[in-house]
Amino acid sequence: MILRLGQIELFVTDLNKSKDFYVDVLGFIEVERTESSLYLRAIDEFDRYSLILTQKPKAALGSFSLRVSSPEYLRELEKQHQEMGIATQYVENSIHPGKGPVLKVAEPNGHPVEFYHAMEEINVGNKSGGVDALPMRYSHLHRGIPPVAIDHMNLRVTNVDKALEYWQAIGFSISEYVQGDEGKFAAWTRAKTSTHDVALVQHKETSLHHIAYIVDGISSVVKTADLLADAGYRANIDYGPGRHGVTNAFFLYVRDPDGHRIEIYSGDYKRDTDLPPIGWTKEEYDTKGRLWWGPSVPDSFFETTPVNDEWMKEKVTK
Amino acid sequence: MILRLGQIELFVTDLNKSKDFYVDVLGFIEVERTESSLYLRAIDEFDRYSLILTQKPKAALGSFSLRVSSPEYLRELEKQHQEMGIATQYVENSIHPGKGPVLKVAEPNGHPVEFYHAMEEINVGNKSGGVDALPMRYSHLHRGIPPVAIDHMNLRVTNVDKALEYWQAIGFSISEYVQGDEGKFAAWTRAKTSTHDVALVQHKETSLHHIAYIVDGISSVVKTADLLADAGYRANIDYGPGRHGVTNAFFLYVRDPDGHRIEIYSGDYKRDTDLPPIGWTKEEYDTKGRLWWGPSVPDSFFETTPVNDEWMKEKVTK
Amino acid sequence: MILRLGQIELFVTDLNKSKDFYVDVLGFIEVERTESSLYLRAIDEFDRYSLILTQKPKAALGSFSLRVSSPEYLRELEKQHQEMGIATQYVENSIHPGKGPVLKVAEPNGHPVEFYHAMEEINVGNKSGGVDALPMRYSHLHRGIPPVAIDHMNLRVTNVDKALEYWQAIGFSISEYVQGDEGKFAAWTRAKTSTHDVALVQHKETSLHHIAYIVDGISSVVKTADLLADAGYRANIDYGPGRHGVTNAFFLYVRDPDGHRIEIYSGDYKRDTDLPPIGWTKEEYDTKGRLWWGPSVPDSFFETTPVNDEWMKEKVTK
Amino acid sequence: MILRLGQIELFVTDLNKSKDFYVDVLGFIEVERTESSLYLRAIDEFDRYSLILTQKPKAALGSFSLRVSSPEYLRELEKQHQEMGIATQYVENSIHPGKGPVLKVAEPNGHPVEFYHAMEEINVGNKSGGVDALPMRYSHLHRGIPPVAIDHMNLRVTNVDKALEYWQAIGFSISEYVQGDEGKFAAWTRAKTSTHDVALVQHKETSLHHIAYIVDGISSVVKTADLLADAGYRANIDYGPGRHGVTNAFFLYVRDPDGHRIEIYSGDYKRDTDLPPIGWTKEEYDTKGRLWWGPSVPDSFFETTPVNDEWMKEKVTK
Repeated sequence: MILRLGQIELFVTDLNKSKDFYVDVLGFIEVERTESSLYLRAIDEFDRYSLILTQKPKAALGSFSLRVSSPEYLRELEKQHQEMGIATQYVENSIHPGKGPVLKVAEPNGHPVEFYHAMEEINVGNKSGGVDALPMRYSHLHRGIPPVAIDHMNLRVTNVDKALEYWQAIGFSISEYVQGDEGKFAAWTRAKTSTHDVALVQHKETSLHHIAYIVDGISSVVKTADLLADAGYRANIDYGPGRHGVTNAFFLYVRDPDGHRIEIYSGDYKRDTDLPPIGWTKEEYDTKGRLWWGPSVPDSFFETTPVNDEWMKEKVTK
Repeated sequence: MILRLGQIELFVTDLNKSKDFYVDVLGFIEVERTESSLYLRAIDEFDRYSLILTQKPKAALGSFSLRVSSPEYLRELEKQHQEMGIATQYVENSIHPGKGPVLKVAEPNGHPVEFYHAMEEINVGNKSGGVDALPMRYSHLHRGIPPVAIDHMNLRVTNVDKALEYWQAIGFSISEYVQGDEGKFAAWTRAKTSTHDVALVQHKETSLHHIAYIVDGISSVVKTADLLADAGYRANIDYGPGRHGVTNAFFLYVRDPDGHRIEIYSGDYKRDTDLPPIGWTKEEYDTKGRLWWGPSVPDSFFETTPVNDEWMKEKVTK
Repeated sequence: MILRLGQIELFVTDLNKSKDFYVDVLGFIEVERTESSLYLRAIDEFDRYSLILTQKPKAALGSFSLRVSSPEYLRELEKQHQEMGIATQYVENSIHPGKGPVLKVAEPNGHPVEFYHAMEEINVGNKSGGVDALPMRYSHLHRGIPPVAIDHMNLRVTNVDKALEYWQAIGFSISEYVQGDEGKFAAWTRAKTSTHDVALVQHKETSLHHIAYIVDGISSVVKTADLLADAGYRANIDYGPGRHGVTNAFFLYVRDPDGHRIEIYSGDYKRDTDLPPIGWTKEEYDTKGRLWWGPSVPDSFFETTPVNDEWMKEKVTK
Repeated sequence: MILRLGQIELFVTDLNKSKDFYVDVLGFIEVERTESSLYLRAIDEFDRYSLILTQKPKAALGSFSLRVSSPEYLRELEKQHQEMGIATQYVENSIHPGKGPVLKVAEPNGHPVEFYHAMEEINVGNKSGGVDALPMRYSHLHRGIPPVAIDHMNLRVTNVDKALEYWQAIGFSISEYVQGDEGKFAAWTRAKTSTHDVALVQHKETSLHHIAYIVDGISSVVKTADLLADAGYRANIDYGPGRHGVTNAFFLYVRDPDGHRIEIYSGDYKRDTDLPPIGWTKEEYDTKGRLWWGPSVPDSFFETTPVNDEWMKEKVTK
């Protein structure tokens, strides 16, 4: 089965500027740098990296990767997609370091999705014992906020109900949703037990609204703004801090040098995925769901990031 | 499949004393009180309750309940246990409020285990919308620490390897373990992705070492000791605060008026359950695993709580 | 000499509504209630109370009280004020419980100021030993935010430079100021070593902008908004959270049921009072000083509370 | 008058080892390094430095410096000491960078004390405006714990009552004390309004027990132990964490590479210095005062650091 969101690749236009923002200010751990990409990790992650920044002429969502429970499940997903009439690419060796075979698809809205099972873990299994095996032990690497773990993505789609057909077909369940007059306006869906791996919100075009990293409590969310203002990134503080009604998250949205929006948050909840979702009317969402309390939403918050338009056309060695 | 630890029932000798300790000082939410039992909830739980305190002549672990993903899976577990030669009782109506059918078993070491699927949720589904549906919204109910959610139990068994046969057979995976000269000394096993639902540690007899509630960060762990000392429970602070090597938990162990040990902790980690466990030698465990840093272990920390010796003999209506 | 801000009296129009807001939601400790007044304390204060809410037909700043280092210093201040041509009233017995003699003055802008030395302390001196003598021990009284200690007031005056003449004459020093084209626009002044007891900001009329209580860290500031939204006071969240440039405070401004503004904050600094103040130009203040980072200032933030217009006319027994 | 503890000089035997401990692990900011000394600052301090580590053949307390309110007050203190029959040295130019004239004395127990008024401040007054003038703005310099500000010293003396005669003569007031059968066993004294600048505790010889830095809340105290254990300094964690009854501090004591003990703490209180002290009997102190709750005191906690035996013999240019 699908377990969780594992990695995100963002296209950026200047790797050095990105490094200053993500590594030097926010405190992401730089794992590896190749000619074209920077691989980053948050402090409580066992996977070698969770964020890939790749230099490209145009900023975009490159792709995102969902981890599955076994190598065999990749083949099962391949079959399942083919039955749904969705084109797939099975790639034996990912172009990214430490990553095993991947199954690439463009979900019906056009979002670039990748499934994988094998990913090199950091320090676990490499050493004789457990003593030094835990990422959260390396307190001396904690700088910046620091980011704790990748959590979710918020995607914009032109038709939420239609998008849900796909995400529910591959096993995601809805934690919360907003019911509009003509179908669902938004839905938070997940493989794991927290509120979401993938949120789907109605928009005029397929795009990315934000990616999200969880941090250690309310004071770390606020520290993000302190760090950015101190380092000359005051204008990159997009919205917040405040509290969402949906998901209960205490949030701060920031923009990276390319305008990609990152949610730095704490405070959502866990609930078994078999339980019925929590529903909001559009009016409830507008008055309390989007914003339980906090500053009013600025116009800039409705801007989104385009998605990789070369996704299924990239040459792969199958 | 099995999802997580859901409830624990402790036998206590004086409900009023227990109420003072758990509700008035630590801040558990009192959900319901019957003639013989007190039902308690932590602040971020959707289940109506997670802790049942039942008045009995002798303090003991009454039982603990594991939630499964569907009603059908209870019958599947029943068959699986019968194939393992383990006696079962399928009870159509739990004696506890809001709980559906349960499957009772005594696992091979004698621990009183119960499986269930249906449990009444608090305020979700009862209301038209999501606005007021989230337990974590009720800030005015936050008192004491407050406890955030039930997390795990630490059981003592006479043979860890043998106990693991059972727990792995029903689908639990090992997150960490300690390898002794003659088999495993301890293992942390789980259905969910955090470090454990059930820890198994070698001991001269089957018993309970502690139950554990997670709280919101390091300062809430410390607040527990402040509250207890202020309320006249200084002697109930058993051990800590300190940091475990295994699981990375920042811990404080306290004893309730009957001597039941409660771990109040924050800071463990999440890791997919299919990944290989982290192993410690016994020497590593003794020098760094049990205690990454902190005060040395007092003798009282090796005392344990007996288990319900009437578990499978109780009369039920099947 | 003058030591610090000690108490504030606010006129409110409905004591029961005020009690719900201050005591039941925010967690002020109710110390005493008389027919007309409610006396409140924060958790780390030794004085019996720091906030007096008095029922009156019209909401206003009743007065504020500054503590001096000896009874004799009251008489010295009396003389000093008379030399400045400022009317005084020396009141042998304060109308407020536990308070010794007070010297009443209307400072040149018309703000109702009171000086005092003797104030009953809570539990210190009443008991044989120190064991139970510290207010911060009573963890079981910690509810709501809770507020930790009274800190400062922000007054509006028609001429800051003129107001400073008075405050500097009685020994206050400036920690920070904003230099406008025609004199100072604002100044933060204090008797104690933190950034201010009394801030003075230019306005069209003498009035109170806010009173401020310090709380325990960033998460307590945010908890204030969570508590208010949960308890039906979402509309009372006036501005923030955000970070001031001046004083470095992480702030949240809330309005009580009468519209009095309370700053709930953490994070300012200490600096010896003999050192030269930190100056900002008006432009620096407008771009970074008022708001180092955070949501833009809403219009409502410029509303102020009138001051007691009966202050020096009240009948006293001298 | 005397305002507060300003700097401490410790003699250390290996500056490089000290740098690793204080700067690289704990997060003190390195301000300047000369051939023989390392000058360090905590993050919320305006003085250029508060800790001087000076390489010497033998570890000891070099001296400590108390800031006074004016240059003239140094001369007043000189006269006052001469009247008490205490030898003094007035040094026009301190050997330490940025520091003005100092008055050196050995207080009656032999502790090396220095008084000063002028000390270079960091970035205040050097720049045109306030915008970048506040030390707490430099979030990018926050590493390690980080330490927030110097707070106090705990000195051992052979006769507490006799030592108090001196400290009270120069204007310190007692916040708390422990009354033994034959005079006071301990006293916490201060110039500022927090619980102490200088604690005096009975011991067989004049020595230093610990110096103390305040940090930002409970989680920062705990982070100190996490950092030390991670960086190979597990054995340097001396005692704690726990809560003192006296002063209410949440403490962790650590030892530097030379065995100097540093208290990392949060949570004491402020109270006007004119108010009567809080007294404990020796029995109250032994049962609750030293340790309100926490692990029992290890023997190592009674070891102390010798004091500079060349203090008044050093050659100075007067």
